[in-house]
Amino acid sequence: MIKITFPDGTKKEYKKGISSLEIAEEISPKLAKEVYAASVNGEIRDLSRPIDTDANLKLHKWDDEEARHAFWHSSAHLMAEALEAIYPGIKFGIGPAIENGFYYDVDPGDGRAITEADLPAIENKMKEFAAQNQSFIRKDVSKKEAMDLFTSKGDEYKTELISELEDGTISLYTSGNFVDLCRGPHLPSTEPIKAIKLTSVAGAYWRGDEKRRMLTRIYGITYPKQKMLDEYLVFLEEAKRRDHRRIGKELELFTFSPKVGMGLPLWLPKGSDVRQHLIDFLTKILKKRGYKIVTTPHIGNVNLYKVSGHFEKYGASSFQPMSTPQEGEQFMLKPMNCPHHCEIYNATPHSYKELPLRMAEFGTVYRYEQSGELHGLTRVRSFTQDDAHHFCRPDQLREEFKSIIDLILYIFKILNFNDFTAQISLRDPDNKEKYIGTDENWERAEQDIISAAGDKNLKTTVVPGEAAFYGPKLDFMVRDAIGRKWQLGTIQVDYNLPERFDLTYNGSDNQKHRPVMIHRTVFGSMERFVAVLIENTAGKLPLWLAPEKAVILPISDKFNDYALKILEILNNSDICTLIDDRSEKIGKKIRDNELKRIPYLLIVGEKEAENGSVSVRKQGEGDKGSMKIEEFVNFINSEIKKEIEI
Amino acid sequence: MIKITFPDGTKKEYKKGISSLEIAEEISPKLAKEVYAASVNGEIRDLSRPIDTDANLKLHKWDDEEARHAFWHSSAHLMAEALEAIYPGIKFGIGPAIENGFYYDVDPGDGRAITEADLPAIENKMKEFAAQNQSFIRKDVSKKEAMDLFTSKGDEYKTELISELEDGTISLYTSGNFVDLCRGPHLPSTEPIKAIKLTSVAGAYWRGDEKRRMLTRIYGITYPKQKMLDEYLVFLEEAKRRDHRRIGKELELFTFSPKVGMGLPLWLPKGSDVRQHLIDFLTKILKKRGYKIVTTPHIGNVNLYKVSGHFEKYGASSFQPMSTPQEGEQFMLKPMNCPHHCEIYNATPHSYKELPLRMAEFGTVYRYEQSGELHGLTRVRSFTQDDAHHFCRPDQLREEFKSIIDLILYIFKILNFNDFTAQISLRDPDNKEKYIGTDENWERAEQDIISAAGDKNLKTTVVPGEAAFYGPKLDFMVRDAIGRKWQLGTIQVDYNLPERFDLTYNGSDNQKHRPVMIHRTVFGSMERFVAVLIENTAGKLPLWLAPEKAVILPISDKFNDYALKILEILNNSDICTLIDDRSEKIGKKIRDNELKRIPYLLIVGEKEAENGSVSVRKQGEGDKGSMKIEEFVNFINSEIKKEIEI
Repeated sequence: MIKITFPDGTKKEYKKGISSLEIAEEISPKLAKEVYAASVNGEIRDLSRPIDTDANLKLHKWDDEEARHAFWHSSAHLMAEALEAIYPGIKFGIGPAIENGFYYDVDPGDGRAITEADLPAIENKMKEFAAQNQSFIRKDVSKKEAMDLFTSKGDEYKTELISELEDGTISLYTSGNFVDLCRGPHLPSTEPIKAIKLTSVAGAYWRGDEKRRMLTRIYGITYPKQKMLDEYLVFLEEAKRRDHRRIGKELELFTFSPKVGMGLPLWLPKGSDVRQHLIDFLTKILKKRGYKIVTTPHIGNVNLYKVSGHFEKYGASSFQPMSTPQEGEQFMLKPMNCPHHCEIYNATPHSYKELPLRMAEFGTVYRYEQSGELHGLTRVRSFTQDDAHHFCRPDQLREEFKSIIDLILYIFKILNFNDFTAQISLRDPDNKEKYIGTDENWERAEQDIISAAGDKNLKTTVVPGEAAFYGPKLDFMVRDAIGRKWQLGTIQVDYNLPERFDLTYNGSDNQKHRPVMIHRTVFGSMERFVAVLIENTAGKLPLWLAPEKAVILPISDKFNDYALKILEILNNSDICTLIDDRSEKIGKKIRDNELKRIPYLLIVGEKEAENGSVSVRKQGEGDKGSMKIEEFVNFINSEIKKEIEI
Repeated sequence: MIKITFPDGTKKEYKKGISSLEIAEEISPKLAKEVYAASVNGEIRDLSRPIDTDANLKLHKWDDEEARHAFWHSSAHLMAEALEAIYPGIKFGIGPAIENGFYYDVDPGDGRAITEADLPAIENKMKEFAAQNQSFIRKDVSKKEAMDLFTSKGDEYKTELISELEDGTISLYTSGNFVDLCRGPHLPSTEPIKAIKLTSVAGAYWRGDEKRRMLTRIYGITYPKQKMLDEYLVFLEEAKRRDHRRIGKELELFTFSPKVGMGLPLWLPKGSDVRQHLIDFLTKILKKRGYKIVTTPHIGNVNLYKVSGHFEKYGASSFQPMSTPQEGEQFMLKPMNCPHHCEIYNATPHSYKELPLRMAEFGTVYRYEQSGELHGLTRVRSFTQDDAHHFCRPDQLREEFKSIIDLILYIFKILNFNDFTAQISLRDPDNKEKYIGTDENWERAEQDIISAAGDKNLKTTVVPGEAAFYGPKLDFMVRDAIGRKWQLGTIQVDYNLPERFDLTYNGSDNQKHRPVMIHRTVFGSMERFVAVLIENTAGKLPLWLAPEKAVILPISDKFNDYALKILEILNNSDICTLIDDRSEKIGKKIRDNELKRIPYLLIVGEKEAENGSVSVRKQGEGDKGSMKIEEFVNFINSEIKKEIEI
């Protein structure tokens, strides 16, 4: 008999060799239908694998990532089986589960192509095989056996992968007629895979290497119930509707140019205005909270990054250093602002009385990303961090953390991000030697973060082992209007840079002391945040952020002069306003301008021209009645005030 | 006899071989004493050289650069003669006249050094020789003669220079015992050099090459009258007092760090505030004038600069391209914003109705300068241009020019730069093939600039041949409080980039047309402009630009609480205020804070705490009486308004 311990601490004895699935069935047949994988002593495994020793057991239902991973990984095999049935001789690269669904990279062979038009037939074949209730059977094999199998099959991608594996670690999974090199885990059988959708086809270089063959990547997603798939497809449609890349183009917020370079956003006038409104808004808040704004160049001598340690750690994967035409200097694009800020700190002496020193910069940084990884404004090669560094005494850490949490909550509230969580990342207590800084400082800092989060009633999870090598941290995740999570703000303690830059302050004992540094951002980057904001609001930005607040629609050309008069008044009152003086019917003008998501439409005709008024229509909501022009100015200003003052 | 034509058109006959000096003496002995060089048929010459043919003659008095050049160049020889007398065997590099005075690069020989302590002795020797009324005697020699002379003298610097000259073009000048390789022109004799000051000693690599020997560069200045030298030395002291590098450090506006790199300014909080005040101020004006603000990255693919032509023209002397770690891309730091702006223009189609399109950016650009050329904020490797590009139809050029001149005059007025001139640079009418663009466009653009400047009553000089190859331009020079000239704004027509980027708009004829581009800046760069502003105001910035508007000085610790209350009110009213709560006597607090150039000192004691008032003192002006705190807020705001609204 073996002793199984469940997550709630209860223990039970079972016969040796029992599988996780059998244990689930013993507990309840309903449970057995809801679990897709198991963690046995922390190792994720097939439900059907026998357990031979005492073990801690966790059964994974759909809500656990582990369950979905096994489900989708099994679905990838199912798709491969269907592909092999339809395209005999097709060769396979890799086929992993991903965040939503799975893909498989395949080589259909010379002269054959798989396009989106082929997906329904593949789906149907998958459904046919799934209904056959095929078991996933694991077999551990020697490297030679694996090599022989895939060599005889002629699958050079798999043999390349096998050649890099160590003998004694190789397993195969068989389902129906399909055998794959695979670590698992998998479902016991194809039976739970009820709802299947193949979503798209793309090209992908074998092993991400542009010099190697381009394979065909087929994406799909599956669920245990049709209803779940239907909901996901609706979500997908909604996400597509909110895609900031589409809306950004439609509203003329930003663009990219191949000549300038991939992943380097060009902010068009309206997008630049939105970005600047956000920067101005944050700057005002920061100044009230005692931050000092600095401005530093976008490059630094390579020596700066040798001192900071970034060159050694990230140099090879960054934009490479550039030389000067004479004098043999080497410069790099800055990947972060902290080394520059350390040099500003060191430009003047500091007394303990001046600390904390809060140094902020909207600093544009440059980080190399592979072209395949780039995505709109969320994954770019240049971005502007809303960055700040707090230089403080160790005894000030807790208060500084509280002040930063306060700032982040304040800003999230104004921006209507009310659903968020925070993760506290601590060091691995079993590997303390991995981290820089004294034990005493770490313990204190970790306690300071935990209690600051507690003082601020923050909903947090605490994850040991996730801290950076230089200090513990706190990350904020917000959930948007359609339930997606985005990582925004981060607060990180740093014991490393103060050492490397030899930062000091004069203590009350007149001795030199080492300050602690906190890195923090609220938005992460202006680019990413604008993307999140667009997707969260589906492009209907709050009034205060809208690049244009109103558009004037004269009922006919006769009232264009009056419209121009109003235009001037509004623009001189800093209410950015447009005019639509086309000779179109007013109905068409309204329809066209509603689509542009400009918050207010001001219709002017005979009555309005006589009274000095405008007929106000709110975008998406309709008529709001007539207002005198000064009245409208006051109205807009008070609406904006309501939005940004809480 | 030869016929001499004077600048006013009068003609007179003289005997062949007469010198310019003799002609001056014939006109009046007083004039002969006031001229230092002559232009004979456009060639600048020694006054003493005989004229053998009919010629146009211009006699240069001190106010002409040509006169000062001959005077100071002769003074450099005089200094060399003195040096040779004191340091036998000393070797000479080059010794030119410069904007203010002259220098000579010398190699005193092994084991000898010349320091500032040695300058008075050299000055005295110069005075001694000057009083001897030594003639400067010109002699044209063959290359071999010149080479033999300096080889026998052992002067390897001169022989290196001679080896690069063409035979038949070499002249020597002798004064006293000193012979120099020199093109001239020189004064007839040392007699006019009455006032002499050697100002400094510096190191300079032979031919600017860091791999060659470091020579000693001795700077000096001379005048025909002691009073002129005295005035210059006072000016020099004043310029030193106003040096933005010293004031920038004192007021903690900016700094440089060797780790970050030479010529890359780090804006400290107060400097960053000044810079931002200027940017905000300009932005507001630009928006009112229909400019669209954009934001572009600080790098571009090398291809962007191949398209623009910058790579071919400036690539070798720029910061070199940087590679990506994969994918083989090459990027460069942007040396200007125009190529990015062209790509933004091309991101959307344009109709003739939308033009002019005015695109502005406060864009930070990077240009390599040799370390020896760097100077505070006026000569840097990174700077932020207040840049804009007007894309317009050819028929809009004149109106656009007028609107830009208007903008520049408006801003100069607010900033109290009332003494300025403008230079219109046209193409060389004899070398039209050097320029891109059609004859018709050039003629029209040149006429448009001239008439726009006329319409705006601008004081201009028109200089043919000074246009860029891509279009004519208009540059503004302002004179500061101590009479120095600074080049600020520039307006340049460009026919080149629209071609290279294939910019088009749809005309009223529904055909594609090529727009014209205008580049313009008002300040040039934020860095340079802040430097000029500091030097012009000696660091006493106008109230609206001052990073801190007021400092509160409690009479004793008893009133610190009241002071803190006022501090909060003022800072919440966006009036950036400090407090000096040191336990010092009020007299000392006033003296210390007066030095910081903070515009207002607010003294608070018993009476003020009782009334809710402050006792106001204006920096440098003294007591302004007592004000209620709200009264002071209104006062400051109205003072600022007065400054920036004209």
